[in-house]
Amino acid sequence: MPNRKVSSKIVKTFKKIGWASYVSGLNTSHSGNMSIRQGDKIHITRRGAMKGFLEPADIVTISLKPSDRDKLASSEARIHRAIYNKTNARAVMHCHPLMATVLSLKQDKIVPLDVEGNWLLPEIPVLECREPTGSDELARKLSALFTRYKAAIVRSHGVFAIGETLDEAFRCVAVIEHSAWIIYDSR
Amino acid sequence: MPNRKVSSKIVKTFKKIGWASYVSGLNTSHSGNMSIRQGDKIHITRRGAMKGFLEPADIVTISLKPSDRDKLASSEARIHRAIYNKTNARAVMHCHPLMATVLSLKQDKIVPLDVEGNWLLPEIPVLECREPTGSDELARKLSALFTRYKAAIVRSHGVFAIGETLDEAFRCVAVIEHSAWIIYDSR
Amino acid sequence: MPNRKVSSKIVKTFKKIGWASYVSGLNTSHSGNMSIRQGDKIHITRRGAMKGFLEPADIVTISLKPSDRDKLASSEARIHRAIYNKTNARAVMHCHPLMATVLSLKQDKIVPLDVEGNWLLPEIPVLECREPTGSDELARKLSALFTRYKAAIVRSHGVFAIGETLDEAFRCVAVIEHSAWIIYDSR
Amino acid sequence: MPNRKVSSKIVKTFKKIGWASYVSGLNTSHSGNMSIRQGDKIHITRRGAMKGFLEPADIVTISLKPSDRDKLASSEARIHRAIYNKTNARAVMHCHPLMATVLSLKQDKIVPLDVEGNWLLPEIPVLECREPTGSDELARKLSALFTRYKAAIVRSHGVFAIGETLDEAFRCVAVIEHSAWIIYDSR
Repeated sequence: MPNRKVSSKIVKTFKKIGWASYVSGLNTSHSGNMSIRQGDKIHITRRGAMKGFLEPADIVTISLKPSDRDKLASSEARIHRAIYNKTNARAVMHCHPLMATVLSLKQDKIVPLDVEGNWLLPEIPVLECREPTGSDELARKLSALFTRYKAAIVRSHGVFAIGETLDEAFRCVAVIEHSAWIIYDSR
Repeated sequence: MPNRKVSSKIVKTFKKIGWASYVSGLNTSHSGNMSIRQGDKIHITRRGAMKGFLEPADIVTISLKPSDRDKLASSEARIHRAIYNKTNARAVMHCHPLMATVLSLKQDKIVPLDVEGNWLLPEIPVLECREPTGSDELARKLSALFTRYKAAIVRSHGVFAIGETLDEAFRCVAVIEHSAWIIYDSR
Repeated sequence: MPNRKVSSKIVKTFKKIGWASYVSGLNTSHSGNMSIRQGDKIHITRRGAMKGFLEPADIVTISLKPSDRDKLASSEARIHRAIYNKTNARAVMHCHPLMATVLSLKQDKIVPLDVEGNWLLPEIPVLECREPTGSDELARKLSALFTRYKAAIVRSHGVFAIGETLDEAFRCVAVIEHSAWIIYDSR
Repeated sequence: MPNRKVSSKIVKTFKKIGWASYVSGLNTSHSGNMSIRQGDKIHITRRGAMKGFLEPADIVTISLKPSDRDKLASSEARIHRAIYNKTNARAVMHCHPLMATVLSLKQDKIVPLDVEGNWLLPEIPVLECREPTGSDELARKLSALFTRYKAAIVRSHGVFAIGETLDEAFRCVAVIEHSAWIIYDSR
């Protein structure tokens, strides 16, 4: 059943960014999730959607306050909600890029060497992740970082980024992964 | 000649997962195979199909018991059949991902370091493969592993995974390969 | 609002080369830019376009002389303009390929080892980049190289290449990256 | 001007295999070429075609004997012709895969470690390439190998493979590259 609360323009954006994240290897089959805030609504990918092959029914709409509908949404919906409640972000992108994850295992931050990475994200913090990925505790800690940063890495898990638009949030993820590869391969 | 025993929904799923496995590099041109169980029927990719570019005629339907039709199916059909006869799996995915294969050459199991890999598949066993890939002996040994595991690697060959759906089985393969790269690149 | 100064043939070329650069990993989500010269007009990707998913409105037309319209174009438009003013190039392609960027960190030029690279581009110079990427100074230094070379790398930034057509300019970028990987992996 | 000597089925095959070679990274923008023999005709990609984005006009038809039309065809057409004149091949695929090329720099043959590679191509010879890639001398030496092998690597250049069909020839290239990566990454 398609979600009537979502405009076809938003569906198109989700499909484009989802496919862009898959074909470039920033997500694997089911990894990651993404959302767009519209007023007090959050449009977010549903639990277990294949990000590279999104259908309209894969986008669910939840509220800025927890409700029963949350169980349909990605298990990391509370991270997205915490970020929206604490910042002016209009979109959140979460991916599982390989090299950002690899570097996060041994570093507390990533500092890009390349011009574009350094200009867009001079420093990307790594957050220790001892709590389950869907926990309130992780949501609290991670969202706190977004008052100062546009993107952060959860150790051994993946990247979260925010933006005025989903394109912009996705761009941060892509730039981080590119910078991570440049760091790794130039060692 | 298209296969009338297969619904258009199943054809769509095969095409999607086949393309997803190819574009992400989990399969090369003709590698791998996949199947869905429906009652006492097994819908499986035919011998020599290009998984990234499946057509309806590339899906053949065989029975849970061996028959003459088997010669049309993938040469590894007997592995799929053995798994269905021994477990509750509704789908089987087999791919040739690079890094899982590389690690299998020197390890007896893979233990993911990343959060998602560790949560979905805390341990992936590697099976020694001295028998031909289409042999009954390999089918017997490999299917036995699926009473305890959702996925296993055949040494120097590739990954097999099961699921309630083909999406779910594919997800296991994708997660294993992602975890394998994280292990390899973080050494 | 689509750009009426651009023919549908040129739009098709931009879309093809943009997608080709994205799917092969030569650009990340928003990186790079490309242009085609037509008389005293330059058709160029707009600021912040996703190169893999270009729409007609993502192509803006500026003049060989600076004007107010420049603010719509890519921030590196002045590099494209400087190249057109100094050479006979009909197209300019700029990408952020990983390995060419990595090698540029420590080398002053790239000399391909493979047959095709060596035949097309026997030597690719690396330009030090102390100026902002959109500066006149960088545009002056970089365009000067194109009187002798078909392609050049801006250190820690990316590759610029010229051609009679956009296909040809893109080919140079692709060949450089392929040659860079062969150099890196054969060490 | 589309080529009327080519059936739509053959065009479809060229497009599929060309795209498959590009999206999997076995070819870069303009690298490689492919052909199908039909009686005394050879359908082959034209000089400078983008293999991932073939149009009907990108396929030219030449004869088993040299003629004026050859100048439209790929510069390596004489290698294809020499192979058809010396073997029963119905198709030839040539790609520039990265790792097969890297290994060719230092090895005289590739011996796959993985099951599929070992089964399909137990040994792939590397041919020294001192002659220009379009020369008669290289065509003579390379075609001679195809009386014993299904595939061969020209040092620092790329892979040639033959088959009953273009799918089959492409499969050989894909399997070689997969095997080459397994060898390289397991060192």
